[in-house]
Amino acid sequence: MLRKSCVTIVALSYLWLDVPFFSTAAFAQQRHTAKAAAEVTVTNPMSSYSDIVSSLVKKGLTEQQAYKNLAELTGKIGGRLSGSPQAAKAVTWGKNLMEKLGFQNVRLQNVMVPHWVRGKVEKAWIVGRKGRKNIPLAICALGGSIATPKKGITAEVIEVHSLAEAKALGPEAKGKIIFFNRPMDPTLVSTFAAYGGAVDQRGGGASAAASVGGVGALIRSMTLVVDNVPHTGVMYYRDSIPKVPTAALSTVAANRLSDNLKRNPHLRVHFALDCKTLSDVKSANVIGELPGTEFPNEVIVMGGHLDSWDKGKGAHDDGVGVTQSIEALRLIKELGLKPKRTIRVVLFMNEENGSRGGEGYAAQLPANEKAVAAIESDAGGFDPRAFGVSADSSVFQKIASWASLLEPTDICSIRRGGGGEDISYLKDKGAALIGLVPSNQRYFDYHHSDKDVLANVNSRELELGAIAMASLAYFISEEGL
Amino acid sequence: MLRKSCVTIVALSYLWLDVPFFSTAAFAQQRHTAKAAAEVTVTNPMSSYSDIVSSLVKKGLTEQQAYKNLAELTGKIGGRLSGSPQAAKAVTWGKNLMEKLGFQNVRLQNVMVPHWVRGKVEKAWIVGRKGRKNIPLAICALGGSIATPKKGITAEVIEVHSLAEAKALGPEAKGKIIFFNRPMDPTLVSTFAAYGGAVDQRGGGASAAASVGGVGALIRSMTLVVDNVPHTGVMYYRDSIPKVPTAALSTVAANRLSDNLKRNPHLRVHFALDCKTLSDVKSANVIGELPGTEFPNEVIVMGGHLDSWDKGKGAHDDGVGVTQSIEALRLIKELGLKPKRTIRVVLFMNEENGSRGGEGYAAQLPANEKAVAAIESDAGGFDPRAFGVSADSSVFQKIASWASLLEPTDICSIRRGGGGEDISYLKDKGAALIGLVPSNQRYFDYHHSDKDVLANVNSRELELGAIAMASLAYFISEEGL
Repeated sequence: MLRKSCVTIVALSYLWLDVPFFSTAAFAQQRHTAKAAAEVTVTNPMSSYSDIVSSLVKKGLTEQQAYKNLAELTGKIGGRLSGSPQAAKAVTWGKNLMEKLGFQNVRLQNVMVPHWVRGKVEKAWIVGRKGRKNIPLAICALGGSIATPKKGITAEVIEVHSLAEAKALGPEAKGKIIFFNRPMDPTLVSTFAAYGGAVDQRGGGASAAASVGGVGALIRSMTLVVDNVPHTGVMYYRDSIPKVPTAALSTVAANRLSDNLKRNPHLRVHFALDCKTLSDVKSANVIGELPGTEFPNEVIVMGGHLDSWDKGKGAHDDGVGVTQSIEALRLIKELGLKPKRTIRVVLFMNEENGSRGGEGYAAQLPANEKAVAAIESDAGGFDPRAFGVSADSSVFQKIASWASLLEPTDICSIRRGGGGEDISYLKDKGAALIGLVPSNQRYFDYHHSDKDVLANVNSRELELGAIAMASLAYFISEEGL
Repeated sequence: MLRKSCVTIVALSYLWLDVPFFSTAAFAQQRHTAKAAAEVTVTNPMSSYSDIVSSLVKKGLTEQQAYKNLAELTGKIGGRLSGSPQAAKAVTWGKNLMEKLGFQNVRLQNVMVPHWVRGKVEKAWIVGRKGRKNIPLAICALGGSIATPKKGITAEVIEVHSLAEAKALGPEAKGKIIFFNRPMDPTLVSTFAAYGGAVDQRGGGASAAASVGGVGALIRSMTLVVDNVPHTGVMYYRDSIPKVPTAALSTVAANRLSDNLKRNPHLRVHFALDCKTLSDVKSANVIGELPGTEFPNEVIVMGGHLDSWDKGKGAHDDGVGVTQSIEALRLIKELGLKPKRTIRVVLFMNEENGSRGGEGYAAQLPANEKAVAAIESDAGGFDPRAFGVSADSSVFQKIASWASLLEPTDICSIRRGGGGEDISYLKDKGAALIGLVPSNQRYFDYHHSDKDVLANVNSRELELGAIAMASLAYFISEEGL
């Protein structure tokens, strides 16, 4: 039930548009409603929620503040790899912005984060035969990789399509570069499923290669497009296995290498990296909130991660989640809504290569605080389609019952399953875990690459995600779970 | 009910993916299913439909043939304004492609179309004061406009925000250029609604201006973005009112003109156009089909329009609808499906400035043919979200009952209302009118402008629309309406 204390908001009356003799196909296809604003005082809670959503939509799409903030974050700071000076700047930026917006209890929550540095050398080529030119291969180091020796590595290459295939190689693997070339499956409608089906090569390729005597691992980039832009991402070494350097090949480079191997299985590849891991660095989650008026110790988190990879500007991943979460709370505040439960924005640090922020936030949760729900946006700033909910059945049903109220924000369904890496640590605290699910076809075109920039974010799609998050967070704050 | 004649298709079993220690937020957010192919023989019709959809998805996303065809149409032919040589080439291209794909009864259906030609002169500026430089304004002629006199028009400007405001102008309008500057409403989530709420200025601005003695009309481009690219589109003259020339201003130019008018209400604008309307030209709809095995006279149409504006390459509007319709029928054919009812592709000519193709198709329908349904794609090649259905309640309910079967094609709802300009003429023939509804946030960024090019189409989003259309057309062919 909505509080009855006189919340005056903008209600919308619907008028049919009619464009008589110059209608176009586009317009004729969909008859729509135009909205005329009028002042009303809330009485019926359900129509109130509907009116509040309308007000959030109107304000969010008019002011487009998430996009302005994203332009600033990506333009003035850029990529924000954990431990980097840019990540430190982003922490200050987030704190200053929340203070400027009048959020309460704005604070930093310290966490120690890994500090991997890409370095300046990233080069690779197929060694030219008999005086012919070398054939270039576009690569970038994977996050966490060690460097090659200064002179690089030059070795023959074995192409495989799975970790298992690599691990099953015999003595022929010794001294070779292992090339993992299983593409993301284009037949899966969910590109996240396609990513999930291929990314084990990136995470585990180096150790699988080293386990059979390989001296390095080259991994086909995790993307469905064929272009010459390599995509970075995290990799992990297994403790018991020697470390070897590893890099992503652009999909063009991977196809080129594979084609050349068919013609000459004994070709040699040269690659060189000078990345390194330094000591852990003190960094922070950035937190701000609107305290609940009735149940301040019951908390709904909205969040994204403030760190990003150093390729591109960390726009979709996850400047979007950061700016949507901030904008969602700003919209609630600026509409004069006074949530019963605390709605808190958390900008998590270090999602990409350690999740120390997500882990630290959950570990430092005060004993008297109830984690009601957490909503994460970390799947890109595309047109919102759904919320994915991981919660018990009654909680799921309660959230699903709000589906039609969320429709005006372009959300078309509430699905089972979902959440986000940063908020996953709140599962044990009993929180409902909720992920914003936007259209995902374009996500891996940009993900972790030089193409993850503001120009590839549509401002209206971004804002609709923020509006959807604001609406859902407010419903939870009023109705509980 | 599905025919029981042994249709062998690919069925999909679902396997949970698990990516242990290197899951990323993106992946952790959504657990998904991977699909392994296995051969089965269809028995239960509902699971058969589900299997057929899976096969359509798999084949469509693997082969991406709609995108290849769109690349050819936009790359080799480009913009295809009715009556132009490019439109004629597109007719031949469409017919040749359908024949090559083995569609049956491939034919042209002649229609006469208007022949407006843009010409080479499109320029405008604010006349500089007292020896200062002129201030440039980016414009393009609106389709159907007459030319200015050869030396152009130079006149003072009155800014208005509606046709009514223009028509209410007094004698001060005489000899002036009337500047229509009401923007599309950014607060409407549906950009088509925002378009519908502003486009009367483009269609009727010239006649409204002339009705009060104005000598020309400049119209703010129909787009939600602020950039320097003008958007064309059709306009109409009212018979009883003198014709005056009219052009679209880019949104940057419109803002610039409005700002300058605030400082100097007596500024003068110069603009010149040399567009003209020639005699009507013989052109054609392009038609091909798979005849129904049981009810060949009952027809389901899938279509888009082959003509486009001459700005850009007519990619989203409506190369997308053309190539999706062709691809949808190709997928059905190549999977070996034998539809009970005829499924027909119609590439309509002249949707943009006359609708002669849509009108002609309906007018020439044979008396013994039953128009069961028509599905049009003319809202851009973005991620599909819904089908919009205009039909009586029982037919709507029948189509809506297939919603869950369509989910794997990324369709999340069946909505009331929808169709398309070309197929609207089939309403009187009793056909259910159905529009593919993709995400619409980006559509008017490109619409009718130099930005409507292949680079702004995502191949997977395009293919999913074709797959959704194929699925729905096949259900209708088997189940009737």
